Amino acid sequence: MEWNTGAVRIVILAGGVGGSKFVLGVRRAYPTAEVTVIANTADDITLHGLRICPDLDTIMYTLGGGGDPARGWGREDESWRVMEELASYGVEPTWFSLGDRDVGTHLVRTQMLNAGCPLSEVTSALCGRWLAHEPRLRLLPMTDDRVETHVTIPDSEALGQRRVVHFQEYWVRLQARPEALAVTLVGVESARPAPGVIEALQEADLILVAPSNPVVSIGPILAVPDVREAMRRASASVVGFAGILGGSPVLGMAHRLLPAIGVDVDAAAVGLHYGARSRGGVLDAWTMDSADASSAERVQQAGLRAVVTDLIMRDPATTAAFVSYAIKSATS
Amino acid sequence: MEWNTGAVRIVILAGGVGGSKFVLGVRRAYPTAEVTVIANTADDITLHGLRICPDLDTIMYTLGGGGDPARGWGREDESWRVMEELASYGVEPTWFSLGDRDVGTHLVRTQMLNAGCPLSEVTSALCGRWLAHEPRLRLLPMTDDRVETHVTIPDSEALGQRRVVHFQEYWVRLQARPEALAVTLVGVESARPAPGVIEALQEADLILVAPSNPVVSIGPILAVPDVREAMRRASASVVGFAGILGGSPVLGMAHRLLPAIGVDVDAAAVGLHYGARSRGGVLDAWTMDSADASSAERVQQAGLRAVVTDLIMRDPATTAAFVSYAIKSATS
Repeated sequence: MEWNTGAVRIVILAGGVGGSKFVLGVRRAYPTAEVTVIANTADDITLHGLRICPDLDTIMYTLGGGGDPARGWGREDESWRVMEELASYGVEPTWFSLGDRDVGTHLVRTQMLNAGCPLSEVTSALCGRWLAHEPRLRLLPMTDDRVETHVTIPDSEALGQRRVVHFQEYWVRLQARPEALAVTLVGVESARPAPGVIEALQEADLILVAPSNPVVSIGPILAVPDVREAMRRASASVVGFAGILGGSPVLGMAHRLLPAIGVDVDAAAVGLHYGARSRGGVLDAWTMDSADASSAERVQQAGLRAVVTDLIMRDPATTAAFVSYAIKSATS
Repeated sequence: MEWNTGAVRIVILAGGVGGSKFVLGVRRAYPTAEVTVIANTADDITLHGLRICPDLDTIMYTLGGGGDPARGWGREDESWRVMEELASYGVEPTWFSLGDRDVGTHLVRTQMLNAGCPLSEVTSALCGRWLAHEPRLRLLPMTDDRVETHVTIPDSEALGQRRVVHFQEYWVRLQARPEALAVTLVGVESARPAPGVIEALQEADLILVAPSNPVVSIGPILAVPDVREAMRRASASVVGFAGILGGSPVLGMAHRLLPAIGVDVDAAAVGLHYGARSRGGVLDAWTMDSADASSAERVQQAGLRAVVTDLIMRDPATTAAFVSYAIKSATS
């Protein structure tokens, strides 16, 4: 198939910061493709009565040109006056940064959710502002149901007797410092894929797994009932991208979470964790950085086609180059 | 009684902008008094999922030194970024200005209300920040129940077939331009006075009715069941202050609403509308501006003690001077 011409249907499973950079690269590589992004929502949290969906917002802002390129999340030209007020009232928590412009998004979302709109409809409405110039890009939450990643950590004086914290508390407040003993996706067993998710996977010409966190970004999407099965049965090739380069995450703190699910902090180990579709997994090909070239054979032995290239997402053009190379290699 | 020494208990019935200026003057005149402000809540509105209590907030910000002195409402040094975002999403209404700092207050309030706290407790918590330096000042909502002022206006093309609008829509969006045919206090019949309201009136040494809007600020407070009766039976003197000076409101647009309740736009007419306690009303004395000196006899004939002085609230000292003069005259 000629990937860079015509209305090829590409589905991307993605988290937030890394995921949005990856999607930017895919858009650059395949500007005429119909792209559906299925985003993780297990990081979502309600704070100060506002429903916050970090991964959806990061993708929406970044693709819509309203994101902060330096931070990688939140709005550009942001201010923090609402939060300063909350702190002045002594309202907890203060560890989660809520920008004033960002609060506008959360207010619209919260009000729509409280009025009974499912998250997928809310997301579509919000994207009406951000992605109007991108008619071939669609952003779907993995589910409209509430799924919440909790992290079990050792007892600690500072946290009293609590041993289970919301992912955001682990990630933002605790900076992933305590050992993650376990990761629990609360509610995922009874979650249903959001409208369009299964259809997108069934109808895709190509499915890409972004180099997002395998435990708390891609993991929750794959754990939504029927998603893994739809990936396995899809007629499209499924190409994954490693976020671990030379034994460390290129972004974020995946190395703090992989041990909790018994996976080594190693590109090949993550590829094997996803597994080959021919052996019950979800991938056909696994793309690793040149730093991990020596693991290619191990990946091939697990039934995956190994692709090795430079995986640093310096800018959309660099990302587009490796995405395009990987897809050609994986599907040739 | 020597009003400016000791812990005299003063209760003030007040609306927002004028009410807060009046309370500032009373604080200045009687710095050692225990002051309870009973504020109108019938202007309250829920917008963008946020519960907004304009009169409570105006009093709280003004007395707490955080209000905008030029506008008379909202926070000083305010910004409007959240609102710009809401407008960018195309979310209605855009006619009600919500400042970023103000949104912090509404978020705290809304979350506490949604958690089941009554408005009086929420107000007390918010005042913990603003009035910590004023241990002798207490701010009470007139009721914890929902009461909403609606205004009936003539049919108009612009508003489609609607003839009844929320007070804020009439006041802010329509700038009180359409004729007010009727004012309805939805829910007031079943409202209960907030905890402390009746007790404060019963225990007061002095009750003051601020020169706030008689229709939509003082009117709703008096319409809460048992409040009017408690005013009538109170052992304290009740002194009212005219907000209409020489036939026009000194602040706001009371002249657009008085006709809807059949009261002339005239200081004496408002005094007679409140009425003398000796004849079933709520006042003992009625304070009018020097511009209305010729109406003093008419007021006296209605059983009220008429006090005439300069009623322009130029600054707290000026207000303190007329408050002090009126109280001395009324209670001597």
